[in-house]
Amino acid sequence: MGNAHRQLHLNLFVSPLGHHEAAWRHPQTNPEHLLDFAFYQRLAAKAEAAKLDSLFFADRLATTPNAARYGAIGGYEPLTLLSALAVVTKRIGLIATLSTSFNEPFNLARRFASLDHLSGGRAGWNIITSGTDAEAQNFNYEQIPEHAARYERAREFLEVTTKLWDSWEDDALVRDKEAGIYADSAKVHEFHHKGEHFAVKGPLNISRGPQGRPLLVQAGSSQNGRQFAAAYAEAIFTAQQTFEEAESFYRDMKQRAVQLQRLPEHVVILPGICPIIGRTEAEAREKEAKLVELSNPAYSLMMLSNRIGFDLTGCPLDGPLPQLPEQEVRGHQSRTHLIVELAQRENLTLRQLLQRLAGGRGHQTITGTPQQIADVMEHWFKNGAADGFNIMPQLMNGGLEDFLDLVVPELQRRGLFRTEYTGTTLREHYGLPHPGNRFAAQPASAELYETNRRAIR
Amino acid sequence: MGNAHRQLHLNLFVSPLGHHEAAWRHPQTNPEHLLDFAFYQRLAAKAEAAKLDSLFFADRLATTPNAARYGAIGGYEPLTLLSALAVVTKRIGLIATLSTSFNEPFNLARRFASLDHLSGGRAGWNIITSGTDAEAQNFNYEQIPEHAARYERAREFLEVTTKLWDSWEDDALVRDKEAGIYADSAKVHEFHHKGEHFAVKGPLNISRGPQGRPLLVQAGSSQNGRQFAAAYAEAIFTAQQTFEEAESFYRDMKQRAVQLQRLPEHVVILPGICPIIGRTEAEAREKEAKLVELSNPAYSLMMLSNRIGFDLTGCPLDGPLPQLPEQEVRGHQSRTHLIVELAQRENLTLRQLLQRLAGGRGHQTITGTPQQIADVMEHWFKNGAADGFNIMPQLMNGGLEDFLDLVVPELQRRGLFRTEYTGTTLREHYGLPHPGNRFAAQPASAELYETNRRAIR
Repeated sequence: MGNAHRQLHLNLFVSPLGHHEAAWRHPQTNPEHLLDFAFYQRLAAKAEAAKLDSLFFADRLATTPNAARYGAIGGYEPLTLLSALAVVTKRIGLIATLSTSFNEPFNLARRFASLDHLSGGRAGWNIITSGTDAEAQNFNYEQIPEHAARYERAREFLEVTTKLWDSWEDDALVRDKEAGIYADSAKVHEFHHKGEHFAVKGPLNISRGPQGRPLLVQAGSSQNGRQFAAAYAEAIFTAQQTFEEAESFYRDMKQRAVQLQRLPEHVVILPGICPIIGRTEAEAREKEAKLVELSNPAYSLMMLSNRIGFDLTGCPLDGPLPQLPEQEVRGHQSRTHLIVELAQRENLTLRQLLQRLAGGRGHQTITGTPQQIADVMEHWFKNGAADGFNIMPQLMNGGLEDFLDLVVPELQRRGLFRTEYTGTTLREHYGLPHPGNRFAAQPASAELYETNRRAIR
Repeated sequence: MGNAHRQLHLNLFVSPLGHHEAAWRHPQTNPEHLLDFAFYQRLAAKAEAAKLDSLFFADRLATTPNAARYGAIGGYEPLTLLSALAVVTKRIGLIATLSTSFNEPFNLARRFASLDHLSGGRAGWNIITSGTDAEAQNFNYEQIPEHAARYERAREFLEVTTKLWDSWEDDALVRDKEAGIYADSAKVHEFHHKGEHFAVKGPLNISRGPQGRPLLVQAGSSQNGRQFAAAYAEAIFTAQQTFEEAESFYRDMKQRAVQLQRLPEHVVILPGICPIIGRTEAEAREKEAKLVELSNPAYSLMMLSNRIGFDLTGCPLDGPLPQLPEQEVRGHQSRTHLIVELAQRENLTLRQLLQRLAGGRGHQTITGTPQQIADVMEHWFKNGAADGFNIMPQLMNGGLEDFLDLVVPELQRRGLFRTEYTGTTLREHYGLPHPGNRFAAQPASAELYETNRRAIR
């Protein structure tokens, strides 16, 4: 941690209109921007001008008529949008969420390799296991498979996709027109994977991308999620409400990575923060109050119910969060635990809890001046709780600019953040090496593959 | 057919470096263009300047080290590339091939709806059932399911995807910030599909695209393929070697559509042509000879084996095409029959057959002057064999320009092709109406849904 050159990494979490549930109703927001590419292009250009490491899109594979009634539902499928953004940006990383539960490894590996080529090495994959029955019901299931089974599938999914990304070696393309040899077939590999969930022969039908494989990102914080992340993730998104929790999570993840023979700096930990920024603290508080005023508790309750996989609609808003029967929580476990702890620690009514979650959904909201926000970020960064942050503006139109124009320059003044990009790929932005290739005669780095073999649950 | 305003429709089949197997070796070709977005952008801009209806990308979900040794394998995944092209073009239609065999309806419907929004209503889907064991082996199977079973799945796949595209009505979005109502939930539909292959609850998690659903394209010519196309396809790509065959196919398809209560002009039939164009016929013949000279018969034989799903490698090149045991042809049946007929009709050796297929792969190659090529197109168009053409330049760099700069103006002079776009969507280019919605109280047009219910095998 004593490295003088160590700098923050900043990812922009693009909730298109803003991370706050009521952002679409705000006077500064045009809800038609949800499906307006020019809006995303401007937003990406601003983030790139501020030298952010990456943009990131979350994802979920279901909605309901009622959710669409109250919330701004229905943006572009993430990789579709990032493919378009790839050709109108130059340096910023492009991270899409895709589920291991409801995709095929061949299709997913191919799409990310395509994006990596298209963007000149700026593709990142946020790996999720889908966690709700509503999603399962769009993919031939009645119920979502249970938590451990989802991670079992995810592990094999990663084994197959990393094989697919290795199936063309970096130097497989020969393109010798005279001899009529397009690729060195000894460097293109059929690997005949046969496992519990997948049988995939390979090779992939696209050559290896500039990054070898996309940056692998993960956000699970359950025990299964942490062990999966320690084995595979190169960047970790995490929701942490307090410095103490963040520091404990950070230490735990670095230790797990080291136990799997990985270098701790190759696992970049990015807690989420929801900044609400004013030139004075009072101005920031006013901005926050405006968003609370626009919120709809009935909608917030429905969203919370979807998130935790337990129906809370009908519970009295001015009473406490009801006891959640442990065995019935089928959704995202770690986030659910965090929410329960928050309600208990601060003795919140359900209404107060919903107000807290409407903005951050479990992530830390910081309301204050640019200096106050930079202070928190610096404290976490310098004291073993973060390698950077996942920035979730509460309001995109206006709130994003507040962060980029006021907080980023403050971080730069403090020497905590880059003023120019030094690399061209997403991996380079995060300080990660080009990955080795398990099929190459002399792999450049066998780290990940060693790790995978040693990974234990 | 007596409609004075009837004009040709022209689709550009983008084999990135050229449709000829040896195109990548040609002196005019830079094989690095295969993964160079700027190349595709220039190509799309040229096709758009010539007012073509659409661009189209074929697809296949497998390759082998040996195929990559001799052929330019490994372009972008089609929807990834079209998503990027959508934001650097304005009017031309964007058609991607995706397989019903190895995708999930929810994911596919969502990606096409996203592209339709992103492009302002220019998305098209070429519906295929994957036909080879090599592809099946990347998706957990040993062998590809048999032909009829693939079409069974495809039919239900279309039923589910069209339900997903209808699950938001055209006017579902309200976006009333004051009232806090984003969508009219009575116009967003859960439909609870439960069938043989799929159980999908809906709704889709993106609103209805500008076209309602993408243009539906299909290319099967077997009995199963034709009946499927008659029920669903709005444009049909087809390989026809002679006017007589093309005229017979055209009549058959229009009749099948009419039997299913569809208007014949809502099924646009586009035979493929591979033009090799010279200012004189001799110049065209020289261009053709150059491509033959660069071909590798061993590679061509492997490609043909892959295409028909029967291993011909080792067969003597100067003998006839061996007898293919009917029950062992597991691949694309109609194309295989066409190839067998071509070899028999013209009494070709295997080597001669390979030379013919290296360019057209079963499609008609026309080598000649712009006038000669326009003559054939006009003859087919005016005499009930085509509504337009699927253009497959043998060489992209040079060959595409020959077609756009020499043949298109000739067609325009004859009043056979538009000189300006009159619509903005792909459907409008092809003269197709905005589709109705089965879930709307008063569907604008129930044609497709009636059709589907009546569709018989």
